[in-house]
Amino acid sequence: MIVVFSKPHYSTINFIKELNFKSKMVMHIIEAQQLSRGILLKLFKRADQLRENPSNFLKGKILTSLFYEPSTRTRLSFEAAMLKLGGSVMGTENAREFSSVSKGESLEDSIRVIAGYSDVIILRNSIEGSSKLAACISSVPVINAGEGSGQHPTQAILDSYTLYREFGSLENLKIAAVGDLKYGRTIRSLCYLLGKFTGIELIFVSPENLKMKDDIKEYLLKHNTKFIEVDNLEEVLPMVDVIYMTRIQKERINKEEYELAKGKFVLNESNLNLIKEGAIIMHPLPHVEEINLSIKTEQNDSRIAYFRQAENGLYIRMAILEEVMKEKEK
Amino acid sequence: MIVVFSKPHYSTINFIKELNFKSKMVMHIIEAQQLSRGILLKLFKRADQLRENPSNFLKGKILTSLFYEPSTRTRLSFEAAMLKLGGSVMGTENAREFSSVSKGESLEDSIRVIAGYSDVIILRNSIEGSSKLAACISSVPVINAGEGSGQHPTQAILDSYTLYREFGSLENLKIAAVGDLKYGRTIRSLCYLLGKFTGIELIFVSPENLKMKDDIKEYLLKHNTKFIEVDNLEEVLPMVDVIYMTRIQKERINKEEYELAKGKFVLNESNLNLIKEGAIIMHPLPHVEEINLSIKTEQNDSRIAYFRQAENGLYIRMAILEEVMKEKEK
Amino acid sequence: MIVVFSKPHYSTINFIKELNFKSKMVMHIIEAQQLSRGILLKLFKRADQLRENPSNFLKGKILTSLFYEPSTRTRLSFEAAMLKLGGSVMGTENAREFSSVSKGESLEDSIRVIAGYSDVIILRNSIEGSSKLAACISSVPVINAGEGSGQHPTQAILDSYTLYREFGSLENLKIAAVGDLKYGRTIRSLCYLLGKFTGIELIFVSPENLKMKDDIKEYLLKHNTKFIEVDNLEEVLPMVDVIYMTRIQKERINKEEYELAKGKFVLNESNLNLIKEGAIIMHPLPHVEEINLSIKTEQNDSRIAYFRQAENGLYIRMAILEEVMKEKEK
Repeated sequence: MIVVFSKPHYSTINFIKELNFKSKMVMHIIEAQQLSRGILLKLFKRADQLRENPSNFLKGKILTSLFYEPSTRTRLSFEAAMLKLGGSVMGTENAREFSSVSKGESLEDSIRVIAGYSDVIILRNSIEGSSKLAACISSVPVINAGEGSGQHPTQAILDSYTLYREFGSLENLKIAAVGDLKYGRTIRSLCYLLGKFTGIELIFVSPENLKMKDDIKEYLLKHNTKFIEVDNLEEVLPMVDVIYMTRIQKERINKEEYELAKGKFVLNESNLNLIKEGAIIMHPLPHVEEINLSIKTEQNDSRIAYFRQAENGLYIRMAILEEVMKEKEK
Repeated sequence: MIVVFSKPHYSTINFIKELNFKSKMVMHIIEAQQLSRGILLKLFKRADQLRENPSNFLKGKILTSLFYEPSTRTRLSFEAAMLKLGGSVMGTENAREFSSVSKGESLEDSIRVIAGYSDVIILRNSIEGSSKLAACISSVPVINAGEGSGQHPTQAILDSYTLYREFGSLENLKIAAVGDLKYGRTIRSLCYLLGKFTGIELIFVSPENLKMKDDIKEYLLKHNTKFIEVDNLEEVLPMVDVIYMTRIQKERINKEEYELAKGKFVLNESNLNLIKEGAIIMHPLPHVEEINLSIKTEQNDSRIAYFRQAENGLYIRMAILEEVMKEKEK
Repeated sequence: MIVVFSKPHYSTINFIKELNFKSKMVMHIIEAQQLSRGILLKLFKRADQLRENPSNFLKGKILTSLFYEPSTRTRLSFEAAMLKLGGSVMGTENAREFSSVSKGESLEDSIRVIAGYSDVIILRNSIEGSSKLAACISSVPVINAGEGSGQHPTQAILDSYTLYREFGSLENLKIAAVGDLKYGRTIRSLCYLLGKFTGIELIFVSPENLKMKDDIKEYLLKHNTKFIEVDNLEEVLPMVDVIYMTRIQKERINKEEYELAKGKFVLNESNLNLIKEGAIIMHPLPHVEEINLSIKTEQNDSRIAYFRQAENGLYIRMAILEEVMKEKEK
């Protein structure tokens, strides 16, 4: 993956080779596939503990939020997690306009300087590869908080934590992934994690123009994770344990593509009845018209799991922050 | 009051009926008229105490500022109040652009998620009814920090706290309200509170096109609060205990309306002499040309109360935060 | 220096005369020349201590960042400094758009109100004279965090602290200042401080249209600090102890001026060899094309001092915050 940054005289690829990414003692969270089954289960258990027993583990530490793209959930849940662990928070929600990037600074320089001021950096950037680059530069942990249409690994961790909490384990689940599977970074990152567990069956339901990309399919094949692709949502609903809905992302495709994809797969009051009892409906949120249920239904139907899922983000991010900061102290 | 939100399939009215707003144990601050005389006096006394003796009552709690419209005073005084009570603060000053609202998320969903991350939500939104809606959804207290040209209840509480501090009580005061009374949410909210005290006389001084709306007039009639409407400021100045100036809000009216209203009622060095000793001049701030006094005068004439008024905001908001969080612990 | 603010009826000059700036007990940091050699050395020593032994000196205090122009380094290093001293932080990174300034409020009023909510104000504004004005109004310390093309005194303090750390003292150094010397507020402020030490020799290297202004030259003459102006960087490099590079600031000059100045003085891999061992390269950052070195060189050549320089900002700002808050307690 070639990245062209604002500093024109140097290629990231060379740079990463020279600096030898792996040899660092700092633990960064850059892509879902870096996480083992063991570390995931450890994080899930720690998140369950933190939900009951608060900790002051990060007192005196500073988290910097560096967001080059909009966010509510991810930024605020990371910041709340840090505050709940006794730490402090600073940063920018509009790095593109209000940081030195507006004066032409390279991401590398921003990161190097900010790493000198803080104990962990939460980075959201539209350019794929930017969090890997940041991790190479930074003397403190960097956490990828969403990278264009690439990855969003902590969303995948919270999604798999939700499966763990709802079903007790991540083995033997039948999961439908619905919507924009091509540019949807949350479902892409989740597939990387699901490949590490056994007995998972994936059903991809997407518009023709937003099908899952080959890199993920190859990964699943290599990990012996079954998947099929279908284009009828109603047929799928009664069969699965999990319906993972995603939003068609207007901001990542052109108007024609959007018109082709929009409104094709919608969960509404009538097809909700097709879903079996004990199954759950997930969504990384924000949702728009792909979920068309009354607020009453959203509050009373226990199969609606996406607000529980969002809240899980707080506790799993507490566990993640503890973990990466613990590593740093070694 | 009918509200159309971005979620098109559901009306707020139905929603509020179904969820039964009143039955919740959480105390929200949504509109001035919800506050009794008793609770106001309790808040005033607590604010006086907090001014002298700091408290650490909200240690470990998180406040989220969710501002969809610009603010300095309100946001920073709420945040300072939270920090002074030992709590933490996070949020966005530009929710319109940098939250998931930019991806089409409904306010309800944003609130439901954020309520899972924090202990109190301070909401400023341009749409009337939005804080009531948020209160219905939220599992933690929601405080309306200004809602379009609707209400701004905590401004009214700090304004009445200022009257309490300056005059020792809120009974038997003659108050001139000057400027944009039609869209001015601060004076609207204050009228709701003044209706709860006896012996208040209101004199409304406004441009023809920005007169006080009927809903407030009816409320005052029902509460036996006297009011008259006049259009000559000079005649009024010698008669009153309080001159409450307000800004003509360019951002809420069209250009012609603004030209009609602008500069019509101005307090300047010459008509300042008409005001009696012991009277005070209030203003919710920011002020522009409707107050045209030298900084020297502003610093030395003790009748200028609007900077004391602004500072009162800090202490009364400390009392308000304590109060709503206390309720929550029941 | 005449300043026209949004409040049209009052001139700053009169105002400053009337309020008698000097008589206040509060210590503000407004311009580099206010700082004596003694206070600088005291700050350097305290910064060295704080680097080793953290302090909780500002627990319970609140810092407000009020930034009307973009910043990463300055804002975050001030905020990190405050947090590391046990204090809290609030503010706005986009005061122009999201504060009451957007409603026409004067800076004076904003400052007066914010001073009531916080214990120190960090102000960045594009208008020269605005931090002096703010200091006159504010009841709490105001720190100038960069003012248009005027001054940036804490940058000068951190730059001189860097010289102190790298060379053990600020006496007898030969320093080349390269780039935009006309509008570059960092080098302007640094010259004010260098004038207080003996044996300094300055070499100004700038495009014809961005030469150092006369006010600084006169100041240096008066303080017996030697300086020369040259237009050949290569000749200068072997002669000096310090090369202080600066960016041509696109945002402060027109397109023609920019084209004349851009790329004229660049430090690259080849002319790096001309610099003597033991010399250092400084830059206030962000840098763009005026430094064209590989990241490998930047990481391995110990003469590259600008990332150490940026990190020094954290510790010296801790010392500065302590100092101005200590004054306040007198």
